[in-house]
Amino acid sequence: MTQIRLTQLGDWPAIWRIVEPVFRRGDTYTFSPSITEAEARVVWMEVPQATFVAIDDDGNVLGTYYIKHNQPGGGAHVCNCGYIVSEDAQGKGIATQMCLHSQEQAVALGFRAMQFNFVVSTNEGAIRLWKRLGFDVVGTLPRAFRHPTHGYVDALVMFKSFDA
Amino acid sequence: MTQIRLTQLGDWPAIWRIVEPVFRRGDTYTFSPSITEAEARVVWMEVPQATFVAIDDDGNVLGTYYIKHNQPGGGAHVCNCGYIVSEDAQGKGIATQMCLHSQEQAVALGFRAMQFNFVVSTNEGAIRLWKRLGFDVVGTLPRAFRHPTHGYVDALVMFKSFDA
Repeated sequence: MTQIRLTQLGDWPAIWRIVEPVFRRGDTYTFSPSITEAEARVVWMEVPQATFVAIDDDGNVLGTYYIKHNQPGGGAHVCNCGYIVSEDAQGKGIATQMCLHSQEQAVALGFRAMQFNFVVSTNEGAIRLWKRLGFDVVGTLPRAFRHPTHGYVDALVMFKSFDA
Repeated sequence: MTQIRLTQLGDWPAIWRIVEPVFRRGDTYTFSPSITEAEARVVWMEVPQATFVAIDDDGNVLGTYYIKHNQPGGGAHVCNCGYIVSEDAQGKGIATQMCLHSQEQAVALGFRAMQFNFVVSTNEGAIRLWKRLGFDVVGTLPRAFRHPTHGYVDALVMFKSFDA
């Protein structure tokens, strides 16, 4: 069974193996495809408030996500998360499990909403999933993403409020 | 006549005098109202690609703006700017002048669009101005800003493409 836990010392190499190919491909996240391992570690592990891993029964890392304030100051009640599932573990519902887990964490941490700032419009599986998990498209950034094969495509802003 | 130029060594104290009350008030920007001077200097002067000041004939700083990539990687062709006009210099068209200047700079730097990520909906003068200067509202973040007097209010995402 897949468990989700906070990252521990020593998790980074396994996380990097999962996130590196996604960053290098550069078709879903806006990180530079030439990001270094040290830079990636900062953005994924140090900047966020917390970073989690999804692990199987043998402790293998199948996915990872971070949670952080999306804005400081007057915007600090809205969080932002980023999720990446290992290539080998696609199609097992791990993204769903991580997103549901992150929403529980967000509420527990006192956040009132979650915002995805930049969902690439060609990432249709992700958009379908976020909608199914309660997110609305609240904005469309025209041609804001330069896709490595599709050229300039829209990016979506997605949002879910936790207010009753 | 108001001139706009890149910041020089020694400009920071004058810039801080202008931006500090705006950050402290916390009703338009999402910086923490308790931001330190050193933190503010990083976000306004060091993180951005360039920071400018609007000065009068005597060299007094009337306003300031920064320009930076809004996203790295596949989003790096869209820039982001922030503008602040001195309390004493309101109503003289300095925000307009800075915004037009920033658009020229953006095009010169190779950006293809400009995005404002978080325009507080109660900041009606700014919204009117950005619309007049060619920006569209492309998103509405529901109750994403906690206004010090109005409580939770929407924030707008505004966008202007420079493509012909």
